[in-house]
Amino acid sequence: MRSTRNPTPRPPGDPFGWLEEARAGRERAGLTRSLRPRGEGDRLLDLAGNDYLGLARHPRVVSAAADAAHRWGAGATGSRLVTGTTALHAELEAELAEFCGFEAALVFSSGYAANLAALTALAGPPGRRGGEGVIVSDAANHASLIDGCRLARAVTVVAPHADPAAVDKLLGDRRRGVADSSRLPSGGGRETSEEPVPGGPALVVTDSVFSVDGDAAPLTGLAAVCREHGAALVVDDAHGLGVVGDGGRGAPHAAGLAGAPDVVTTVTLSKSLGSQGGAVLGPARVIEHLVNAARTFIFDTGLAPAAVGAAREALRMLRAGPERPARARWVATEFHRRLTDAGYAAARPDAAVVSVRAPDPAAAVRWAADCREAGVAVGCFRPPSVPDGVPRLRLTARADLGDAELDRAVEVILATAPGR
Amino acid sequence: MRSTRNPTPRPPGDPFGWLEEARAGRERAGLTRSLRPRGEGDRLLDLAGNDYLGLARHPRVVSAAADAAHRWGAGATGSRLVTGTTALHAELEAELAEFCGFEAALVFSSGYAANLAALTALAGPPGRRGGEGVIVSDAANHASLIDGCRLARAVTVVAPHADPAAVDKLLGDRRRGVADSSRLPSGGGRETSEEPVPGGPALVVTDSVFSVDGDAAPLTGLAAVCREHGAALVVDDAHGLGVVGDGGRGAPHAAGLAGAPDVVTTVTLSKSLGSQGGAVLGPARVIEHLVNAARTFIFDTGLAPAAVGAAREALRMLRAGPERPARARWVATEFHRRLTDAGYAAARPDAAVVSVRAPDPAAAVRWAADCREAGVAVGCFRPPSVPDGVPRLRLTARADLGDAELDRAVEVILATAPGR
Repeated sequence: MRSTRNPTPRPPGDPFGWLEEARAGRERAGLTRSLRPRGEGDRLLDLAGNDYLGLARHPRVVSAAADAAHRWGAGATGSRLVTGTTALHAELEAELAEFCGFEAALVFSSGYAANLAALTALAGPPGRRGGEGVIVSDAANHASLIDGCRLARAVTVVAPHADPAAVDKLLGDRRRGVADSSRLPSGGGRETSEEPVPGGPALVVTDSVFSVDGDAAPLTGLAAVCREHGAALVVDDAHGLGVVGDGGRGAPHAAGLAGAPDVVTTVTLSKSLGSQGGAVLGPARVIEHLVNAARTFIFDTGLAPAAVGAAREALRMLRAGPERPARARWVATEFHRRLTDAGYAAARPDAAVVSVRAPDPAAAVRWAADCREAGVAVGCFRPPSVPDGVPRLRLTARADLGDAELDRAVEVILATAPGR
Repeated sequence: MRSTRNPTPRPPGDPFGWLEEARAGRERAGLTRSLRPRGEGDRLLDLAGNDYLGLARHPRVVSAAADAAHRWGAGATGSRLVTGTTALHAELEAELAEFCGFEAALVFSSGYAANLAALTALAGPPGRRGGEGVIVSDAANHASLIDGCRLARAVTVVAPHADPAAVDKLLGDRRRGVADSSRLPSGGGRETSEEPVPGGPALVVTDSVFSVDGDAAPLTGLAAVCREHGAALVVDDAHGLGVVGDGGRGAPHAAGLAGAPDVVTTVTLSKSLGSQGGAVLGPARVIEHLVNAARTFIFDTGLAPAAVGAAREALRMLRAGPERPARARWVATEFHRRLTDAGYAAARPDAAVVSVRAPDPAAAVRWAADCREAGVAVGCFRPPSVPDGVPRLRLTARADLGDAELDRAVEVILATAPGR
């Protein structure tokens, strides 16, 4: 017998019956996702991945992965604090910190885990250590930052996208104890606080380069506002490292924020560095705190040696070859120029991501499929990956894209565009 | 100026000042953690990692990692739904599902991410799809399951450890709409609900083998209780796969639950399979739902090909060599027998983890350090890794541990024990 309090009775023994309805809803909305494994012989021109410098298949990077597996084993065998830290991990951390200009770095099994770690260890629920404060989170932040806010269980206020003045106002209201919820943005389904925002240390959290539209955060303005209010700035530089800043040192470095005592940055090893994993960079005392307090560090198996070795070699190549980031940025501006010249609504790229709007999800899916049919892989972003609901093609520039490939890519994208 | 609402004023520009106090607190409590990188020449006898079958450094597994990097690249280059799924990922998923007896499997970059995915996609905050229900979570569950409950934002009730009758009572109270919070366990700092527990689909969540003490969950009893109440059972088999069940097929298989329509299991690729990553196994409709709804799947970069290749090779070796799991279990029972014969409080192992109690955190740290000094690496678990506050040495049995190594390990552990 089911309680009358149960709104949707289902047969005993079928606790997953509701999934059928969820599936039907996705299909009605044209939002069903399915996996499409790449074959070894596939030779698509790739504008969909995040291998911005073309290093994931570079012989030196691949050999470094293989060599690390042979020297250290296929897995780290345990958590970082038990058996999962090799000298290779420590070397990568030192080299990453030095390259990006921060005091210390800590490597994780993914950028997702790095973001969860940074936010949960530096903010917390009201009443706990580090938890008196508030997180101010940009409305267009990546899912892993949003999940970090949720998992930290801190009071989280969603700020309008890329708007230091709005962040200033939110932090100022907080310090004055103003609790006028009408001044808080709605947040598009994110956590927003309708409660009085408590006093205490605040974290302002933003992507440096937003993954969907490729636009840059106003880091200089945000840092100034943070300092005005005694808040810390947490920057996810996943799409900045290896692409923007002096020699690809990333967006915080470009904004003069590298090594600042009140700035923490997170990066991935899986984009420009062509490998897997993530890292948190910042003041040594922040990194030491993460080692002691971040659950996604303490309770996760260490990153596999092959991934560590590959990322370290890619980082060394990046340091030795500052022309790679410059070429990736140039390819992106070329995509933008040629597509806007042809009348398409492409966002001006601040890094290596170029976003082109599509009229509706079905048209976006068809456009991407037609590109693929013609040999060019492009990203296709639909809800919930695009919080504003506007579907897009997402093109990623690569430093190793030749001029003829660039010509061909633009030709295919224009020839397959909706309405042509 | 700081608001008078701020309980701990700190100088502007030092938002991380509170970390000094946190650090001092850890040091006073003797709970400071620090990383100790392994060197390439280190030849410690390893009883600390989770490489239960000794496959992480097996030449076939290591070569498979290197080969996958050469064939597919050092990284997956994108999220699984964009460019991050290779044919190798699909093959591993099919072989994992078939070996463990489930309809389908989905690979993640870590077991942590797999647990977050399963819980957030199958449970949710009150009022959302899949969110009318409640999660009943074992009091000794791993941090990643606890974080999954938190991130799902579902009503979570912590059940007493390994107690199907208590779970039965909690699910029964829920169905009758009973909201007597005095019947709910305190949960040792975990989320517990003092609110009326709402009706709807419930998830019962448990480790199969608990990571600290190595004891097994009563899966048969839990499954019976779940079916009685129309709840689903989610089992984290991180420490079961490759060790328990027929040929190492894992604890759900051993309990006759493999392939059940109301059971989901999660595994790691980083323990018995010697690699990195995790997976969710279950009914095809659950896996399809995760592909469409699990944020730690959709928004994470795919697992690196080297890790996929290594795990696939280890799985093939496991299938071909059922003597490995049997040997790992035998080594564990030998550790237990010899340590209890010598008068130490070791928990009887249900898999390959043997836990030995230490009088206090300082003694545990000293004991582990003395073992290391004598050439044997053992785990040392202290708060917050041990929710009950009892520090322990944690020994992991390995299938590739020879009889002489076993003798030497026991000799060192006994010779360095506190009070000897």
